[in-house]
Amino acid sequence: MKSTGKDLPRHATASARISPANGLDVLSRNEVTRLRDASQRGLHALLRRCALAVLTQGVETDDARALLDRYPDFDIQVLQQDRGIKLELTHAPAQAFVDGRIIRGVNELLFAVLRDIVYVATQIEAGGFDLDDSSGITHAVFEILRNARVLRPHLDPNLVVCWGGHSIARHEYDYTKKVGYHLGLRGLDICTGCGPGAMKGPMKGAIIGHTKQRRKSNRYIGITEPGIIAAESPNPAVNHLIIMPDIEKRLEAFVRVGHGIIVFPGGVGTAEEILYMLGILLHPDNAGIPFPLIFTGPSESAAYFQQIDKFLRLALGDEAAKRYSIVIDDPPEVARQMLKGIDKVREYRLDSKDAFFFNWALKIQHEFQVPFRPTHENMASLNLHRNQPSHRLAADLRRAFSGIVAGNVKEEGLRAIEQHGLFEIHGEPEIMRALDALLRSFVDQHRMKLPGGSAYKPCYRVVVD
Amino acid sequence: MKSTGKDLPRHATASARISPANGLDVLSRNEVTRLRDASQRGLHALLRRCALAVLTQGVETDDARALLDRYPDFDIQVLQQDRGIKLELTHAPAQAFVDGRIIRGVNELLFAVLRDIVYVATQIEAGGFDLDDSSGITHAVFEILRNARVLRPHLDPNLVVCWGGHSIARHEYDYTKKVGYHLGLRGLDICTGCGPGAMKGPMKGAIIGHTKQRRKSNRYIGITEPGIIAAESPNPAVNHLIIMPDIEKRLEAFVRVGHGIIVFPGGVGTAEEILYMLGILLHPDNAGIPFPLIFTGPSESAAYFQQIDKFLRLALGDEAAKRYSIVIDDPPEVARQMLKGIDKVREYRLDSKDAFFFNWALKIQHEFQVPFRPTHENMASLNLHRNQPSHRLAADLRRAFSGIVAGNVKEEGLRAIEQHGLFEIHGEPEIMRALDALLRSFVDQHRMKLPGGSAYKPCYRVVVD
Amino acid sequence: MKSTGKDLPRHATASARISPANGLDVLSRNEVTRLRDASQRGLHALLRRCALAVLTQGVETDDARALLDRYPDFDIQVLQQDRGIKLELTHAPAQAFVDGRIIRGVNELLFAVLRDIVYVATQIEAGGFDLDDSSGITHAVFEILRNARVLRPHLDPNLVVCWGGHSIARHEYDYTKKVGYHLGLRGLDICTGCGPGAMKGPMKGAIIGHTKQRRKSNRYIGITEPGIIAAESPNPAVNHLIIMPDIEKRLEAFVRVGHGIIVFPGGVGTAEEILYMLGILLHPDNAGIPFPLIFTGPSESAAYFQQIDKFLRLALGDEAAKRYSIVIDDPPEVARQMLKGIDKVREYRLDSKDAFFFNWALKIQHEFQVPFRPTHENMASLNLHRNQPSHRLAADLRRAFSGIVAGNVKEEGLRAIEQHGLFEIHGEPEIMRALDALLRSFVDQHRMKLPGGSAYKPCYRVVVD
Amino acid sequence: MKSTGKDLPRHATASARISPANGLDVLSRNEVTRLRDASQRGLHALLRRCALAVLTQGVETDDARALLDRYPDFDIQVLQQDRGIKLELTHAPAQAFVDGRIIRGVNELLFAVLRDIVYVATQIEAGGFDLDDSSGITHAVFEILRNARVLRPHLDPNLVVCWGGHSIARHEYDYTKKVGYHLGLRGLDICTGCGPGAMKGPMKGAIIGHTKQRRKSNRYIGITEPGIIAAESPNPAVNHLIIMPDIEKRLEAFVRVGHGIIVFPGGVGTAEEILYMLGILLHPDNAGIPFPLIFTGPSESAAYFQQIDKFLRLALGDEAAKRYSIVIDDPPEVARQMLKGIDKVREYRLDSKDAFFFNWALKIQHEFQVPFRPTHENMASLNLHRNQPSHRLAADLRRAFSGIVAGNVKEEGLRAIEQHGLFEIHGEPEIMRALDALLRSFVDQHRMKLPGGSAYKPCYRVVVD
Repeated sequence: MKSTGKDLPRHATASARISPANGLDVLSRNEVTRLRDASQRGLHALLRRCALAVLTQGVETDDARALLDRYPDFDIQVLQQDRGIKLELTHAPAQAFVDGRIIRGVNELLFAVLRDIVYVATQIEAGGFDLDDSSGITHAVFEILRNARVLRPHLDPNLVVCWGGHSIARHEYDYTKKVGYHLGLRGLDICTGCGPGAMKGPMKGAIIGHTKQRRKSNRYIGITEPGIIAAESPNPAVNHLIIMPDIEKRLEAFVRVGHGIIVFPGGVGTAEEILYMLGILLHPDNAGIPFPLIFTGPSESAAYFQQIDKFLRLALGDEAAKRYSIVIDDPPEVARQMLKGIDKVREYRLDSKDAFFFNWALKIQHEFQVPFRPTHENMASLNLHRNQPSHRLAADLRRAFSGIVAGNVKEEGLRAIEQHGLFEIHGEPEIMRALDALLRSFVDQHRMKLPGGSAYKPCYRVVVD
Repeated sequence: MKSTGKDLPRHATASARISPANGLDVLSRNEVTRLRDASQRGLHALLRRCALAVLTQGVETDDARALLDRYPDFDIQVLQQDRGIKLELTHAPAQAFVDGRIIRGVNELLFAVLRDIVYVATQIEAGGFDLDDSSGITHAVFEILRNARVLRPHLDPNLVVCWGGHSIARHEYDYTKKVGYHLGLRGLDICTGCGPGAMKGPMKGAIIGHTKQRRKSNRYIGITEPGIIAAESPNPAVNHLIIMPDIEKRLEAFVRVGHGIIVFPGGVGTAEEILYMLGILLHPDNAGIPFPLIFTGPSESAAYFQQIDKFLRLALGDEAAKRYSIVIDDPPEVARQMLKGIDKVREYRLDSKDAFFFNWALKIQHEFQVPFRPTHENMASLNLHRNQPSHRLAADLRRAFSGIVAGNVKEEGLRAIEQHGLFEIHGEPEIMRALDALLRSFVDQHRMKLPGGSAYKPCYRVVVD
Repeated sequence: MKSTGKDLPRHATASARISPANGLDVLSRNEVTRLRDASQRGLHALLRRCALAVLTQGVETDDARALLDRYPDFDIQVLQQDRGIKLELTHAPAQAFVDGRIIRGVNELLFAVLRDIVYVATQIEAGGFDLDDSSGITHAVFEILRNARVLRPHLDPNLVVCWGGHSIARHEYDYTKKVGYHLGLRGLDICTGCGPGAMKGPMKGAIIGHTKQRRKSNRYIGITEPGIIAAESPNPAVNHLIIMPDIEKRLEAFVRVGHGIIVFPGGVGTAEEILYMLGILLHPDNAGIPFPLIFTGPSESAAYFQQIDKFLRLALGDEAAKRYSIVIDDPPEVARQMLKGIDKVREYRLDSKDAFFFNWALKIQHEFQVPFRPTHENMASLNLHRNQPSHRLAADLRRAFSGIVAGNVKEEGLRAIEQHGLFEIHGEPEIMRALDALLRSFVDQHRMKLPGGSAYKPCYRVVVD
Repeated sequence: MKSTGKDLPRHATASARISPANGLDVLSRNEVTRLRDASQRGLHALLRRCALAVLTQGVETDDARALLDRYPDFDIQVLQQDRGIKLELTHAPAQAFVDGRIIRGVNELLFAVLRDIVYVATQIEAGGFDLDDSSGITHAVFEILRNARVLRPHLDPNLVVCWGGHSIARHEYDYTKKVGYHLGLRGLDICTGCGPGAMKGPMKGAIIGHTKQRRKSNRYIGITEPGIIAAESPNPAVNHLIIMPDIEKRLEAFVRVGHGIIVFPGGVGTAEEILYMLGILLHPDNAGIPFPLIFTGPSESAAYFQQIDKFLRLALGDEAAKRYSIVIDDPPEVARQMLKGIDKVREYRLDSKDAFFFNWALKIQHEFQVPFRPTHENMASLNLHRNQPSHRLAADLRRAFSGIVAGNVKEEGLRAIEQHGLFEIHGEPEIMRALDALLRSFVDQHRMKLPGGSAYKPCYRVVVD
């Protein structure tokens, strides 16, 4: 249901002063002062961008800049009032309002944005996070999620993370809705990246399932980060929004709060996420930790997962394939498998006296917690041989993947190739060929767009050691 | 979202013993005994038919018999257990279950069916209803609604009744969703006849609007009756189901609990409902009583309401047209008008110390409370002249309308015409011509299907007095 | 805590128009009309008397007439307003108000009085009760309790009925509080006759126990009847008040809703209640039905129960004594025994598929459901021999007891003895002597006051058959 | 209601492992580790002492040491379990348990103790508090109260702080209950020092008033500190317990969260608290800030407040007396005055856009936020002349008062006098004489006990400048 149509002139705007619908916490005088500053200093641009994404929720565009351009006069200021704060919105997108009053769901997400931006900024300023070591990063992820009140101590494990493309075909989108519906019927909550496509369908489906089961207090959690939110603005189903500081912490947040992951078809980003997840699960420390991981899509999308499966088995071995299952065109079966998997998670946490609400036990290596920059030097230091533990190979494959995609389609990568020639990668030819084939198939399935519609051409050469 | 697909073999069945999810009231030993009897004596067939409609909710068919045929072995029995009752379902449609457990929403509706069937039967048996006079019928409607807990004393007026066809075109259905969405955004609840089409769309739209506004305790009330429920099985959005004993009490229930009515495009049935409503509103006793009545549809359906409007103005005068407004292709405007209209209802009830939850003040003539049988004698006694108060003419027009439709398409009417020749109607030729034209346009718009696809041919002749 | 003291001039009054704090049910136009009539016709005097008792709650007096005399101008009228009813109070006791607003607890009890008086009157008028046979009376008790919403289907058995004197010594009152405290600590709710003394202490104690356990939704149920309420006005702890139509239905209500009974010291009335209860429990049909019955008091009151125990063993045999236990000066032990007893009740109800909220299984003979009038004829037809089943003897002993007390202290009985000489009772001399001794001990312990302080003298003679 | 009596052998103990009844917040792995350490390092003794006070709640003793001696084997340890922490109690006072299960209210207070002790320790350790300047201290008070969840943003002002002696006469105690009752009837919540006497009576009375008004979510807040809690163990009515780090922060907490203060009769401590409060209210910055302050007691205690009033008028002037009112023997009047006073507080906060839940506006001078040590040097530097602003004189009077009491009865003061002779105080003879008279009257009224019952003898001499 789009709130657009003839009712709103395009790019109509409205201005309003709004109070937090849910109440904010009790704030001290100092904190209110800090919040007001937030709208003036460096945080203001960040706040404005994220707020705009929330205010245009449901509008689909890949072009974040376009969104900002459409509302050039939009502004947001924090005001101190009686016992709390208000937000002053000027020239805000009119679609967020009904007869002059802001939609309550939008109100809640706006204050969630404010909450996370200010919290992260003041914690970092105050030295509250220790971002230099792995444990410190994990604690920062925990603190941000706790401050967002998304960690609930009294709930049984029931949170399913859904990954997949944000611009998928209609039949794939409909399939994600069906899976969401069957998850919802079984009382499972949904967590996604909070944008359109595979991030929206499971939530919309779950709403129907939850409604049929008369379930209240449902959670549709969206986890995003400042670089993504504008391009993938929160879909209207999201009722808990969290802005993590960057991509890596966002990924860790998914893995720590989710009790299982479903991967729908997507593009190269989705493939990278699969390698991220397998890289973690294959670490020896995580060997005994249950974590349901299901790849699924409609029958038309079967090829996508077959190719990924083939590649993974080749590179990481059949052992690695035991960590995931593939279900084609069977939403109830997906839901049933997920339910069984989460039951095992529950038992494991009870046995190990671990929290239900945060997966402390899972080892996430430091290399998965920090960004990978695709320079020639970094690419040359990858090791794509099977003469190492599979979790190491998975980590390097994820990086290779990331670098190759950059070399093929991203401005930064293309320029690097132009200047310094092909990337040199130390790897086994067989694996590199398989990787090539996989990328080619993505291009064929229109899942990866090459610049100017050019033909796929490897941007690297293999160095056989 | 259909729960079908590959997951369920067609006509799969399941058996289960279920307890009321919401709790039933505290029952006495006598009442439990009576309930058990319900499944044995005459009520059993009725209970079985209604239960089956609920269990197949969301399945669309015009053929009630077909539904029963598909589940010939289905049975339902009432059992006495510990502190209450259970329902034993055998060979029930599998779609009502998830992994062997009945969907909670279906459970609730099943016990609602049981509640209403037993209540009406025992009240009538015990002489609790006085169905001979107008006031007695109104009290019976009240008692059935109260027993169904649908009358809520502490709510402000906010219940919008939506009427319209159950098998409308896709674009008309989408339009009903949009209107429902804009009603929901404004905090209005929905009441319909609880089947598909215009009875489902507004509820589905309202769910999205309510969710965006984070509104809880939403009411999606479906009012049906035993003769209709199988053909128009409750759509899955319905969370309050009421089975009234017959069509006339169902219509009165809509009018007494609703605070305003929206009419979407439909067929002849919808036109009859409009005449029913205007017949009531034009009664001199109701002159001062506010009651918002809006006809609306997408731009493609504008002709439908133009023709109806033209006919009503001709027959009942421009005064009658003041009782309704027509809005084409503008869902937010529909919602805004309804909101304003309901504000007036609220003020009126406060001024007149009348209940918010039941429209006691509205005069409904006895002739609207009892069925009209389209015999030659009844048709001959109609008076379709404008030489009488418009509410009387509206009442007779509704009957004429009903009779003519019967004579054109219903088995009972067709047979009567065959045996006794054309109906003779005492009326003004101008009005009868207009009526003809209206019916013809319905046929042209595929809103009325003639037997065997024959051409429309009047089944009556006008007797000019 | 008395709300009296210097703050209120004695017999100060206030007038106010009040709405039901809790909301009443949705009422039909007919019912509101009936309610208004209630304040005019015969029910008005009854309503006024009961309302006055509620408005003076916590004031202790044995003299009901005095209470009415103190507020001669008090009046109560039912008004129809917007969507419901209001009560117009004039010259009402000022103690029920705080700064001009009625205390909410008093408001609730006032509307409870209205609810029960009107319900019973209209049901009897409408022939809704069948009071001629035992089952009909039980159903009437059920219907009145259900209408008062005191039957809760989802609660585990936890309701302890406390019986005992309303004008007991201070140390006995303190003991009842201690027992109530230990019941409350263990999550048990309290039901009493709702007046002072042993009807107040357990509730006050339980409030402290419940508060310490942070228990919400506690039930302090008071069951009274029109003849008693003025003399034993509801104590302020009562939060559910029920007005049964007469003494016998009140006794049956205790037995049907309570899951166990504690008897504190009292006067002859308490002894009669013990015989009532044993008469029921000793009926062969009730042999297997668990029902905890505990007699308890402080050490100073040990004699009272020793004498009763001795008498019961003599008359009804040691078997009868198995139906009760006696605990002296040990409140925690009382609470522990009651908890264990109620556990057995719970298991029994589960096994027999009986309701937790109403003791359907217990057989209460018709003779316990109708009043006994102490005429010479009725007294002469008693049979106080042990040559009959003990439950029959218990029933006749209760009647004898009742008659003898009437002959000793009540106006009706004293006059009958004056006119017709001593009652003639057919009984065993040994039992009659024991009965004499018991009554004498009550006089010695100041538990029974003889007219004019005269010495105790039997008002009957034994006829040895 | 004491839970003692025969049921518990004196000093009986029990051991148990308990989980937080209310749930604690979501804790990080680091925090759980810190908590466990709490029971090992320096905090353990503090935790043990405070926990013991809670476990013996309701036991009245002035001798904190005795309490510890009575349970020499008592220990408390923090355990990490599944998803949170547990407390292991060994040889704990049996009175805190019912049939082996800890009383829920006690459980809640135990975890409140843990919460505050750990929070304060870790904040101080982490440098989270800036205790060097006045604003930093106020923020520390705020943070501790917020962490204890005692600041509620959505409540209207309704919190009445009650001060007065912990070992007062029975009639004075009964009077505090009556005042509490009338506060409770008017919907006011209570905050006290959480011990016996005037700290318990108002809460017990308010419970009855709240219950009569069917009020839920009542707050009986006890604010204590480690040096006091053992001697004045929390009374059982307390449902929110806060352990402030020291006496001065405890006093500031009262003033910041309370919307008005009632002072009951007490000893010298109470007089000091009055001077503390007046010293704040007389500060010119606070001139326009409403703050209801009522001194009240039964008629027998009238003299106490007359003498205080006389002294305050002499020393601080009649202007100072405008800041308080005195009500003798009239609980409803006290409640009504408080209600009116709080209304003014509410309006003031609205006008000045100040929080309802924390009195940010009130200026509290630094000298009231830090302890006064009664050395000869400090005493000599006092200035007890009226040639200065009255708020300064009030501050020095409070210190003089404190020092003189120390010199008369406290070990530290007695020893100082013994070593260095009388304190030398610079002051006006008239004021010093009045102070003497006041102290003498306290001795006469048995409100101050001199060592060994010796006669009152000034421990200072006045130096006339």
